[in-house]
Amino acid sequence: MLFTPFQRVGAGGSLLFFPCTELEMCTVGPPGPAEPRVTSRNAGWARSGAWSPLEAGGRARARFFGLRALRTNKRRGRSRRAGRALAAGGRAEGRGAAMEPGGCEAGPAVKAVAAVLPAGGSGERLGGATPKQFCTVQGRPLVSYTVRAVERVSWISDIIVVVSPENIETMKSIIEKYGHKKVTVTEGGTTRHRSIFNGLKLFSENEFSNHLLQKPEVVIIHDAVRPFVEEDILLKVVMAAKEHGAAGAIRPLVSTVIASAADGCLDHSLERAKYRASEMPQAFLFDIIYQAYQQCTDYDLDYGTECLHLALKYCKTNAKLVEGTADLWKVTYKRDLYAAESIIKDSLSQQICIITDVKEAVVRVGFLLHESLRSQIKVETISISLSKRDNHLQNIFLGQCYNFVCINDKKYATEEIQQLVDMLEESNIPLLHPVVLISVHLSTSENTSFSIDLEELTRMKKFAREMKRKNILVYGLLIQHKDYSPLQETVNSAAALTMALIKDRNPELTGQLLVA
Amino acid sequence: MLFTPFQRVGAGGSLLFFPCTELEMCTVGPPGPAEPRVTSRNAGWARSGAWSPLEAGGRARARFFGLRALRTNKRRGRSRRAGRALAAGGRAEGRGAAMEPGGCEAGPAVKAVAAVLPAGGSGERLGGATPKQFCTVQGRPLVSYTVRAVERVSWISDIIVVVSPENIETMKSIIEKYGHKKVTVTEGGTTRHRSIFNGLKLFSENEFSNHLLQKPEVVIIHDAVRPFVEEDILLKVVMAAKEHGAAGAIRPLVSTVIASAADGCLDHSLERAKYRASEMPQAFLFDIIYQAYQQCTDYDLDYGTECLHLALKYCKTNAKLVEGTADLWKVTYKRDLYAAESIIKDSLSQQICIITDVKEAVVRVGFLLHESLRSQIKVETISISLSKRDNHLQNIFLGQCYNFVCINDKKYATEEIQQLVDMLEESNIPLLHPVVLISVHLSTSENTSFSIDLEELTRMKKFAREMKRKNILVYGLLIQHKDYSPLQETVNSAAALTMALIKDRNPELTGQLLVA
Repeated sequence: MLFTPFQRVGAGGSLLFFPCTELEMCTVGPPGPAEPRVTSRNAGWARSGAWSPLEAGGRARARFFGLRALRTNKRRGRSRRAGRALAAGGRAEGRGAAMEPGGCEAGPAVKAVAAVLPAGGSGERLGGATPKQFCTVQGRPLVSYTVRAVERVSWISDIIVVVSPENIETMKSIIEKYGHKKVTVTEGGTTRHRSIFNGLKLFSENEFSNHLLQKPEVVIIHDAVRPFVEEDILLKVVMAAKEHGAAGAIRPLVSTVIASAADGCLDHSLERAKYRASEMPQAFLFDIIYQAYQQCTDYDLDYGTECLHLALKYCKTNAKLVEGTADLWKVTYKRDLYAAESIIKDSLSQQICIITDVKEAVVRVGFLLHESLRSQIKVETISISLSKRDNHLQNIFLGQCYNFVCINDKKYATEEIQQLVDMLEESNIPLLHPVVLISVHLSTSENTSFSIDLEELTRMKKFAREMKRKNILVYGLLIQHKDYSPLQETVNSAAALTMALIKDRNPELTGQLLVA
Repeated sequence: MLFTPFQRVGAGGSLLFFPCTELEMCTVGPPGPAEPRVTSRNAGWARSGAWSPLEAGGRARARFFGLRALRTNKRRGRSRRAGRALAAGGRAEGRGAAMEPGGCEAGPAVKAVAAVLPAGGSGERLGGATPKQFCTVQGRPLVSYTVRAVERVSWISDIIVVVSPENIETMKSIIEKYGHKKVTVTEGGTTRHRSIFNGLKLFSENEFSNHLLQKPEVVIIHDAVRPFVEEDILLKVVMAAKEHGAAGAIRPLVSTVIASAADGCLDHSLERAKYRASEMPQAFLFDIIYQAYQQCTDYDLDYGTECLHLALKYCKTNAKLVEGTADLWKVTYKRDLYAAESIIKDSLSQQICIITDVKEAVVRVGFLLHESLRSQIKVETISISLSKRDNHLQNIFLGQCYNFVCINDKKYATEEIQQLVDMLEESNIPLLHPVVLISVHLSTSENTSFSIDLEELTRMKKFAREMKRKNILVYGLLIQHKDYSPLQETVNSAAALTMALIKDRNPELTGQLLVA
């Protein structure tokens, strides 16, 4: 086993760190899917990847430990384009991006910002065996969406994900699989407050351990099951915390809140307008929230849930309340998972790229399809030979397009699709979300009986199955172009089928040949 | 114009009723989709259908009026089967059904129960132009699901839906289209409380108008945007209201509730365990809630939202609080519509019926498909000639099955499908939910090149388009059976495609031929 316990600190707890080859006290660059994916060959991860939870000896011997998981990405720049990548919620683009506080080097007001994501919940209310933060949406665990939403904010330098001991390995594999950066995984306590406290300790108690994690001026606390958080609200709570010591997002109450008497009857109901629901994210001057946690009682740690309350009770800090948007909601019930899935599918269906070769008939169909789709979705159309590298296409990849239509007059254009797949894989686009790739076959044959060779179809289906493993969903679509039939009508039908395929993103239907 | 104002009552308001040929003071029979649909040929509806909102002369002249919309169904019986029809939420079956209070004739405790559904909201929080109760889920307005959830409870005799004046016509057409029964539509006020009060007035102020609506002993108040309410909780609040005068469903708080100070900072946070979210349904002894509304101030009517509060304040009635289930949630945001859609699709994907003819090869594939599907979904398989009426198939229709697989060895078995469609239409099954009908073609041809005649395909697509208008989604599926290839594998693939089709219920893909 390769792990190295650096230092034993505190009473009864051992803090285990993995050595890291670089000190990144003040990282500012936005990571994005366009950057190279961290694989198990990267030094930091390889080491922590070798860690075994059995070594920790259970909660009693090692109450918490940090894993220097993924901080090896050296190609950080201030590329705003990548930083403002497609939000999981689909609305992140732009809203808060112009208001970036500038990171810690240019730092206007805040010296360093870190985030703690408690992800230790059991998800009882969801009614399943899997804790909700690990439930998958479009094949990817919810917590990965939330981590992504936070890591794409360039001025957040460190993210601590706090998970229960039995989920350390799961969380590590998620970080590896989806190429997350700036993330440290640590073990949670038995309650929410204890887990957050454990996360905060990593910043404070590493003075004996080579300062692997810099103590931030402001720390954000955000739930792992609120995946649609935007940079805008993160910025607002951080700025407000800098000024007031603490801040938290709030929302209007959806239901009236009532107090019940001992006999199970109504005692009184609260006037809805005077109260708010306390949501996440919240932010604190690190010293305030850490001091609050150090002072608070076991009762607080065991039964409390509200960080703002601790800051008020122990540090006399009245948190600034910041109105948040509806997308801050917490995934609590199964219906919330359904909603999250639909929102993500919706956000992935905003943009499509049509690729044609340069033959006249194909280009014409590409144009008509473009016109038919443009009222429903943002469309880019390019005519190129896929065997040549094309800068424009590369830019479309960088722009986080997850839908492609590839029009061809060859019957089974697997070679052309394979070329596009290669380019997609290199771009890391299919890493975070499944990519839809519709291979359109333009048939100009005058035969009324279009014959489909079942063996060829079986080959296509096998190819599609392989692609599915790479998170690329390949569908076939036939457009019959005859002189006597109205092409526009057929293309409109193709457009409707295209929209249906990209909206459903159904993996079971890959490899099928639809007819427009 | 055919409407007849019976009586002018109250100060400044005129109450308009349509004459009804029957007095149903105490209706108990459960309506169900298996019963004949009320069409515009039915007397009561034909009359109200001729009503024009212009006659009402706006809010100032006629503050409220009742429409005797649909109370003409004479085939009411106590068929439990129909009464316990598929709940919109998919879980209604069974849970509360055994606890029916017995209706007003057998009435154990409660003389008569009615329900008022305020549906006058503007749906601002949803962010769309359409008020949320009229947003469609699977093509059907949300309010129709809620009405259905209440009308299927046999012991609720009257349902008042209160809508804003501009939506009277919309609501009327919904009632007609989906064959709702026991429903009276009335005009809402400017606020939620005023709307509910308007609904209640119909029971109290009709003493001068031939008692068209019997004053209930207990009245349920339920939101039109909580479509998944179950009989169980309705029964619980009614029983509790009978005993305590008032009762309401509650749920644990999802977020901490906080009070803010004048400066926008936290004043204090409430201890979450001591408070509850007040949800719907609520129930009241009619005299109590009506008295409370008569006594309450304009301020209450304009700014209040909570009926339990009025009962406490004006009638000193401490409502009994009843723990509800998670599915009582209110559709508030767009994400809730997404969730509702997924829940409904889920509930429609619980049961499938495989129909084969009696040929040996077809029966064998039917058996294998049955075996492959049964771990995921409840399957019934029958082998019959569709040209003969089959009692078992009729029973499956009555059991609210919304998915059918029709296996045939004919290439384009439109005739067979048409026969099934005719039977479905007669059964009224596609009335409330879209039906999926998968036409499986079993090909035993040894040709590797399976040829699809495009003209035939175009005919199939046209047929599917016509079926779609009848709310029947027709898909084609090819199973190739060759001696040398493993049939089980192909059938497994067919099963996966079948599950995908019934789960997505995508109308755009109808008429396509998929290959297993």
